[in-house]
Amino acid sequence: MQGLMQDWPLTLDRVINHAKAWHPNVEVVSRSVEGPIVRTTYGQIHGRARQLSNALLALGVKPGDRVATMAWNTARHLECWYGIMGIGAICHTLNPRLFAEQLTYIVNHAEDSIIFTDLSFCENLANLAPTMPTVKKFVVLTDEAGMKGVTLPNAVSYESLIAGQSTDVTWGDFDENTAAGLCYTSGTTGNPKGVLYSHRSNFIHSLVGISPGMLSLSDKDVVLPIVPLFHANAWGLAFNCPAVGAKMVMPGPKLDGASVYELMETEGVTFSAGVPTVWQMLLQHMDTTKSKFSTLKTMVVGGSALPEAILRGFRDRYGVEVISAWGMTETSPLATTARLTPAQLKLPYDEQVPYRLKAGRPPVGVELKVVDDNGNTLPNDGKSVGVLMVKGAYVLRRYFRAEDKEILDSEGFFDTGDVATLDADGFVTITDRSKDVIKSGGEWISSIEIENIAAGHEKALMACVIGAPHPKWDERPLLLVKLKEGQTATRDEFLAHLDGKIAKWWMPDDVLFVDDIPLGATGKLDKKVIRLAYKDYKLPTA
Amino acid sequence: MQGLMQDWPLTLDRVINHAKAWHPNVEVVSRSVEGPIVRTTYGQIHGRARQLSNALLALGVKPGDRVATMAWNTARHLECWYGIMGIGAICHTLNPRLFAEQLTYIVNHAEDSIIFTDLSFCENLANLAPTMPTVKKFVVLTDEAGMKGVTLPNAVSYESLIAGQSTDVTWGDFDENTAAGLCYTSGTTGNPKGVLYSHRSNFIHSLVGISPGMLSLSDKDVVLPIVPLFHANAWGLAFNCPAVGAKMVMPGPKLDGASVYELMETEGVTFSAGVPTVWQMLLQHMDTTKSKFSTLKTMVVGGSALPEAILRGFRDRYGVEVISAWGMTETSPLATTARLTPAQLKLPYDEQVPYRLKAGRPPVGVELKVVDDNGNTLPNDGKSVGVLMVKGAYVLRRYFRAEDKEILDSEGFFDTGDVATLDADGFVTITDRSKDVIKSGGEWISSIEIENIAAGHEKALMACVIGAPHPKWDERPLLLVKLKEGQTATRDEFLAHLDGKIAKWWMPDDVLFVDDIPLGATGKLDKKVIRLAYKDYKLPTA
Repeated sequence: MQGLMQDWPLTLDRVINHAKAWHPNVEVVSRSVEGPIVRTTYGQIHGRARQLSNALLALGVKPGDRVATMAWNTARHLECWYGIMGIGAICHTLNPRLFAEQLTYIVNHAEDSIIFTDLSFCENLANLAPTMPTVKKFVVLTDEAGMKGVTLPNAVSYESLIAGQSTDVTWGDFDENTAAGLCYTSGTTGNPKGVLYSHRSNFIHSLVGISPGMLSLSDKDVVLPIVPLFHANAWGLAFNCPAVGAKMVMPGPKLDGASVYELMETEGVTFSAGVPTVWQMLLQHMDTTKSKFSTLKTMVVGGSALPEAILRGFRDRYGVEVISAWGMTETSPLATTARLTPAQLKLPYDEQVPYRLKAGRPPVGVELKVVDDNGNTLPNDGKSVGVLMVKGAYVLRRYFRAEDKEILDSEGFFDTGDVATLDADGFVTITDRSKDVIKSGGEWISSIEIENIAAGHEKALMACVIGAPHPKWDERPLLLVKLKEGQTATRDEFLAHLDGKIAKWWMPDDVLFVDDIPLGATGKLDKKVIRLAYKDYKLPTA
Repeated sequence: MQGLMQDWPLTLDRVINHAKAWHPNVEVVSRSVEGPIVRTTYGQIHGRARQLSNALLALGVKPGDRVATMAWNTARHLECWYGIMGIGAICHTLNPRLFAEQLTYIVNHAEDSIIFTDLSFCENLANLAPTMPTVKKFVVLTDEAGMKGVTLPNAVSYESLIAGQSTDVTWGDFDENTAAGLCYTSGTTGNPKGVLYSHRSNFIHSLVGISPGMLSLSDKDVVLPIVPLFHANAWGLAFNCPAVGAKMVMPGPKLDGASVYELMETEGVTFSAGVPTVWQMLLQHMDTTKSKFSTLKTMVVGGSALPEAILRGFRDRYGVEVISAWGMTETSPLATTARLTPAQLKLPYDEQVPYRLKAGRPPVGVELKVVDDNGNTLPNDGKSVGVLMVKGAYVLRRYFRAEDKEILDSEGFFDTGDVATLDADGFVTITDRSKDVIKSGGEWISSIEIENIAAGHEKALMACVIGAPHPKWDERPLLLVKLKEGQTATRDEFLAHLDGKIAKWWMPDDVLFVDDIPLGATGKLDKKVIRLAYKDYKLPTA
């Protein structure tokens, strides 16, 4: 028997409609790409997004069409999201930091028909335009004056595009499973893969995200999303803030410590979210200028593991609570946050730190398990290391245009590619990427753990651990070290440094001193390239 | 185009599964009907609810069957909810405070096959059993020893019913729109009407309910639901608490001030929710015994308007934040909470009070409007008085077994039957019930406002205002006053008391002193009866 409640599809137009209805004068403040601070409100954003919808309809955009954005965090970018999604088109966020070939691949794979972009990216896009035949139009997020000097073909300014358009348009009124957003993961292997979010998945992600156990947002918050709108839904903030009526402060292109700090202070920011590198810059700025925060309370860190120096630096010196979060493009992304249990909160702070540095634990709506090589579920004992698998209302089912390829296990879980432990409270500790883990005699060795310790040696500039082939153990750890300028060292010096800090059977079978260690586009060790270079390396133990 | 996210139906088994997975040792503490305090955990509740599911399946319960509970708030009652709903049967909560004829009507209308009940209600149900032919079995929420003296026919103890049952059962695995719960409204006109909640509506209601703008719940909270499980979903707490891993403290049958206070102190309660009468008893207890709260922070008040004495009493003398909330059985029920805006919070407390006493404002997921007699939407100006209409993911569409009767307006809104204003921030101020409002020359006069002022006259024990027929104005206010013992008064005394406190055209056309004013079952003025008695009354102005 079916319930008799209303059919009220969870479509995202209802989010900005809510903000328009009850928080119309709440501000969205942007540091514009042109330079000045620009102030608008949810009421105005709502109206302009509706004008944009009419402009898109006039351009022939149909439900399901992919309309791309390659832009910084500004109010205009937010208008694009709601204007595109409201009419059932798909907002495809492009990461401007990608290499040209990746951008071309992604735009062609998605068959984007229009790209909204910032002045910052016009030159680059002018070069790429010939490689993107599906793109019929570029819209530059500026006004007519801003277009001076723009050489991008088929380009129009955003302001002239929406000028004169009516705010009267039909939004929503479609199935909540309709696609809303598209974001490609820049996987380290193969071509980028597209994650196609639905209105429903983003709406549920937003409801979960605002809860006290996750981001904990209300209209008392002033939110500065450092995390870009082109990075996995901006962790949901573009929906969460209008959903609760929180003021937004958009940093535009300036993410240096001084610029971020200035916005935080002038706009009364209480909450911010971003990757560790940005927080590192901000922390340095604070320390150097001996500044204080007047309003900032909470900072969420994701994208890569939270470094202890950031956690402690912001907490000890500036009184800001730093929350570690984990997720991926495929999980919308918020899968876990490291908010402590009541029992953990009673511990002395030093004993809380290990939990605060973990990936965190899941909210209702996200299921987790760790499995062994055969897919068997391992105990949640905080010790058993396995592949982290995730399932839930906002986890992907298939990749875009790879709908024929099953990627879930028999229980419907998605393989995150992370190797992790899960404890009894649900805390995830990520120990490695599954392709980087070293499989020695059926047991797993964390490459990351060894290289982090090795990199702490006073002579080391950089360290990398990979599995090298071994006839008896399948793989054994090989440590590569790039020394600091002018240093020399021996194999035994590094093994002695590791001794006692890792299990005996984790000790690398060899140490090589190298001139360089290849890095990928995001500054991380490019282990795919490194493994390839050493695939035939003969360990002395082999 | 459809998104490519997982099909993860929002079914309520996932809520208790989440608690079992990551909060298995969080306690649910009950003051049992038998007397002693009983401690259990979400892990145990999960297992026992699954045993109950198997027992129900063995009794032949099928998906869609109505299985009723008539019970206090205890862990066993919670097990019933999840055990019944998990297998797709419908948990029908019966209000033991209803009159016998209403209970009989409701049970027969729902065709309940089993009733789970407490020892407290066995005698009453034994009398009613012959009038409830669909009920094949009664299950008493006690153990074998507790059954001594129970004369209810076809009764078995809960503990012997589930004893020996396996915890292995299939839960969920059905459409999220499947009916989960059934609750009848005891309308003042006509027969009670059933609201049939779905798994989806309750799940979304729960996600919205835990958000900081509504109840704001996390695993840091210890929640004491005074509001009964049989009263509109216990305002969602039976789902919210396991969803976030909050400890629950169940008060059983003892709702007097001393008992509630004792539980709050011994169990470290931080959050509670209930109707004003219970809070009045608690406040009296606190004042009389000069007690203090050690842990209580937040108290949510709903069911009827929040009296200022409760708001101020708990805040000024005991440091507890009292939050007014509004909703109805038809809205699951949480439609609004009176959490203030950032601007309002900056006001001196005395100026905050009027907002804190309002019904509150809606979260994302709930749409509100006020309409005039012709269904035209009125401005949200805090002044325009109209009928309050509501729409949303957890608002009903049709009543149970009245599926052929359209009850929504052309925009899909449900008529709450309340007369209210809406301000620009979404704050609802309920001024009357729509059937009680006085329609004078096309304008509306709030009967409640006048009678509240009249009741404040030193000689008045009780006051009631109804619309009496008038040839020119359609209706004009008629004030009925029951004086305190031994008092006498004149019409002019009462009109003088009202003068200056209400608009001139609101002044009653007549004042009658009466020996008694009829009250309904819930202690409120029975205006239906009163209106009937004065339907032919000739006003002096007529």
